[in-house]
Amino acid sequence: MAIVECIPNISEGRRQEVLDACAHAISQTGVRLLDVKPDPSHNRTVYTFAGEPAAVRLAVLALFDTALPAIDLRQHTGEHPRMGAVDVVPFVPIEGVTMTDCANMAREIGAAVAARHHLPVFLYEEAASTPARRNLEDVRRGEFEGLAKKMSSADWQPDFGPGQPHASAGASAIGARMPLIAYNINLATNRLDVAKKIATAVRHSSGGLRFVKAMGIELGDRDIVQVSMNLTNYEKTPVFRVFELVKREAARYGVTVLESEIVGLIPQAALTASAAWYLQLDGFTGGQILENKLRGSAD
Amino acid sequence: MAIVECIPNISEGRRQEVLDACAHAISQTGVRLLDVKPDPSHNRTVYTFAGEPAAVRLAVLALFDTALPAIDLRQHTGEHPRMGAVDVVPFVPIEGVTMTDCANMAREIGAAVAARHHLPVFLYEEAASTPARRNLEDVRRGEFEGLAKKMSSADWQPDFGPGQPHASAGASAIGARMPLIAYNINLATNRLDVAKKIATAVRHSSGGLRFVKAMGIELGDRDIVQVSMNLTNYEKTPVFRVFELVKREAARYGVTVLESEIVGLIPQAALTASAAWYLQLDGFTGGQILENKLRGSAD
Repeated sequence: MAIVECIPNISEGRRQEVLDACAHAISQTGVRLLDVKPDPSHNRTVYTFAGEPAAVRLAVLALFDTALPAIDLRQHTGEHPRMGAVDVVPFVPIEGVTMTDCANMAREIGAAVAARHHLPVFLYEEAASTPARRNLEDVRRGEFEGLAKKMSSADWQPDFGPGQPHASAGASAIGARMPLIAYNINLATNRLDVAKKIATAVRHSSGGLRFVKAMGIELGDRDIVQVSMNLTNYEKTPVFRVFELVKREAARYGVTVLESEIVGLIPQAALTASAAWYLQLDGFTGGQILENKLRGSAD
Repeated sequence: MAIVECIPNISEGRRQEVLDACAHAISQTGVRLLDVKPDPSHNRTVYTFAGEPAAVRLAVLALFDTALPAIDLRQHTGEHPRMGAVDVVPFVPIEGVTMTDCANMAREIGAAVAARHHLPVFLYEEAASTPARRNLEDVRRGEFEGLAKKMSSADWQPDFGPGQPHASAGASAIGARMPLIAYNINLATNRLDVAKKIATAVRHSSGGLRFVKAMGIELGDRDIVQVSMNLTNYEKTPVFRVFELVKREAARYGVTVLESEIVGLIPQAALTASAAWYLQLDGFTGGQILENKLRGSAD
């Protein structure tokens, strides 16, 4: 069995009828819709679904068919950066598929969507055609409002579709990536400077671990601070190493860790690796997990 | 979906044709035969299989039908304690079934086997009819050779079947229990006395943790020692607590832990609980594991 996860972000977080229509478009293709997270202040909604590659492909095409006529970015306001009505579409390998399979899906579906809707499509992360397009932030910089100017440069011709933005739908970023883990660590202090210093120390952009994005924020209602992180490749930068490094940096300021939290979903392998590391488990394989053995996988 | 695991131990570890016949009897009922572990020096074989309760029931009945005519304990020698041709049959809840369900299976199947083969059956652990029969060691004490004398006492009348041993097959213990985790910790020393002292400190029988059996042994080929353990209820005595306690006791003697190992299978939940404890994960549930969510279980 092959399972691909897909987490499209659309630039609509307020009109329930549009959100429902998109959810319906996705669901009726046979994938499993796992989560719908609308954010009215961002005016943005994140759908999470998974299934066989063929069903996932149909779901993405149906989503574009439904969302594009319903969303006009010329009328769109919201806090989150965005350049498209269907802003970002990542494919994530879960079971029985490789990252290369997912990158190929991004290319094939990107080409199909561009042709059908006359929409510029940029490939990103593991599907990127050049290193300059790997980071979604770089692809999206300038947002919808700056897109025509950006695309007038030879550097920013799309991978598929026309050389100018779609009038109402802008452009879409379609790519492949590892599962993302949203991971927060709460500190036993209300000193925001400490959380910010730790975030600076551990995140990739300022010299820290390769697959960590981090910021320090206040949790005002609890009078504590938090190191809020995204782990973008749990195989290469595992959860336990991030936790231990944050704990060590906090100790430097005399601060202890209250607790940590996973927001949303985490792959089983990320937890298994953490258990194996702390327990110093030697020679452990996923095939020793009873449930995997019963399902006949991962031996 | 309901899944029960069953791990029958038979008193034959040498005659391949008997072992094959038993494996065939189990497999042809639709359960999944996960493992067959013959031990020639113990003259004993452990089968591990799992499936729907109805299929597991058929597999156990087929195993008794096959093993009983083929094994004569009057001719049996081997190191491991045993009182029956089919010596022990535990049922273990894995998914969608409770411990009570498994105890009921032990009773129903125990009664059926006793009637069909005129075989005394003792219920043990979670299926035991009295506290004195919970521990398998107590039920089996005296072994096949002492069984007639033991059963002459009113205390040791079987739960099902005749009041005397079966001439060639002795008696069987049938019960229900939690998954057992075979867990070893290797120490950076060759001092057997240290391993033995740690085992004494952490095991239930001498004052330690409730669901730990432990002994200290030498790993001669590596010139180190090991604390070799069985964890009989990982929910109440979790792996991480055992590991931390052994590590602390070792430190008392200036000894460090080299590594630990899981022998055979471990339930996913035991690893998840260890990861959550070390990472200080707050409010984490099994429903946040991506694979569980995809399969629609454990939310």
